[in-house]
Amino acid sequence: MKIAIIGTGHVGGALGGRWARDGHEIIFGSRDPQGEKAQNLLRLVPGNVRVAGTTEAVSTAEVVLIATPWSATRDTLTRAGTTNLAGKIVIDAVNPIGPDGLLVGGNTSAAEQIASWAPGARLVKAFNSTGTGNMSNADYGGEKPSLFLCGDDAEAKKVVARLAAELDFDPVDCGPLSMARYLEPLAMLWVTLAYNRGFGPDIAFRLLKR
Amino acid sequence: MKIAIIGTGHVGGALGGRWARDGHEIIFGSRDPQGEKAQNLLRLVPGNVRVAGTTEAVSTAEVVLIATPWSATRDTLTRAGTTNLAGKIVIDAVNPIGPDGLLVGGNTSAAEQIASWAPGARLVKAFNSTGTGNMSNADYGGEKPSLFLCGDDAEAKKVVARLAAELDFDPVDCGPLSMARYLEPLAMLWVTLAYNRGFGPDIAFRLLKR
Repeated sequence: MKIAIIGTGHVGGALGGRWARDGHEIIFGSRDPQGEKAQNLLRLVPGNVRVAGTTEAVSTAEVVLIATPWSATRDTLTRAGTTNLAGKIVIDAVNPIGPDGLLVGGNTSAAEQIASWAPGARLVKAFNSTGTGNMSNADYGGEKPSLFLCGDDAEAKKVVARLAAELDFDPVDCGPLSMARYLEPLAMLWVTLAYNRGFGPDIAFRLLKR
Repeated sequence: MKIAIIGTGHVGGALGGRWARDGHEIIFGSRDPQGEKAQNLLRLVPGNVRVAGTTEAVSTAEVVLIATPWSATRDTLTRAGTTNLAGKIVIDAVNPIGPDGLLVGGNTSAAEQIASWAPGARLVKAFNSTGTGNMSNADYGGEKPSLFLCGDDAEAKKVVARLAAELDFDPVDCGPLSMARYLEPLAMLWVTLAYNRGFGPDIAFRLLKR
């Protein structure tokens, strides 16, 4: 396929490189096609790869990957041209990540509200992002489901992690309580996959490591 | 340990049952200890298990699990008593799930904003919740990382899923574009684990099935 990659950063480079290796035609869209960043990318990514202006890249491609920094995304799309994008398959790999988390979406969580209602409690967010079937029986044939947890009290988290390990989960300490802003959405993902997407409740997230 | 479980639903029953089997002392806290729901739970969960009023359960326990519906959570904590909870390990398994998603946190996403800036584009959220190292090489020794994606255009999603599969990911169609509200936080979880929690970037999420 002809794939335009808008954004000359790590995401675009990694995906462009792999897809080029598999025989796809890659067009990196750049505001400055002759600039150092775009030309460097071209040297690093072998295969059927070229650089073009954003509008040209988008017009030519069957599939457009947007891998821009969030702050540049709106301008980039304007530059690409709304009419060029209409009807086209566009992959959004953008995350609106700011210094304090997501710039779009929630900046609080149930956990943090609960903490304010129970002052002094050594609160740990846990067991919210998997199903009750998994809590009863976490056996996935040797692949342990992860149990994501977070909180501000290290000792409390150790206790909860031990309780999770007893249930044959692999506990994953995700950091401070404010990480619940991401563990609560993770639960929504689990619920949706299990009950709206046909997977059923015999699913679990596992954090792979290598 | 002495574990109070506040909430007589599925989460409390599942965790209470497993922990009781492992020798922990379980006290289900209920607004109505003699009521049908609490007494049923008692019949279903064998072991060192009893039911008490919320305040008593919390006062007695070393660890308190909150597994109430979100709508009941604040009142339940008030009933438990702030002073009883202070200093105690409290596990928050609550999710603020309403009919349209999380009641706390984000109710939009970068993806949805992008869709409004590129009207008519066949937008798919994808490749946002894993690292570039994984995009380049998704080999985890036979355990394929999942590639979570979402969008409103089924054909577009099939194309993107095929592109992901070519990179040795296991594509997971999470539903409509609004699911980006949960895939964007998933990315924050990945980033935090990789760069703030010492895991490094050689980690990936996998959806286990059985």
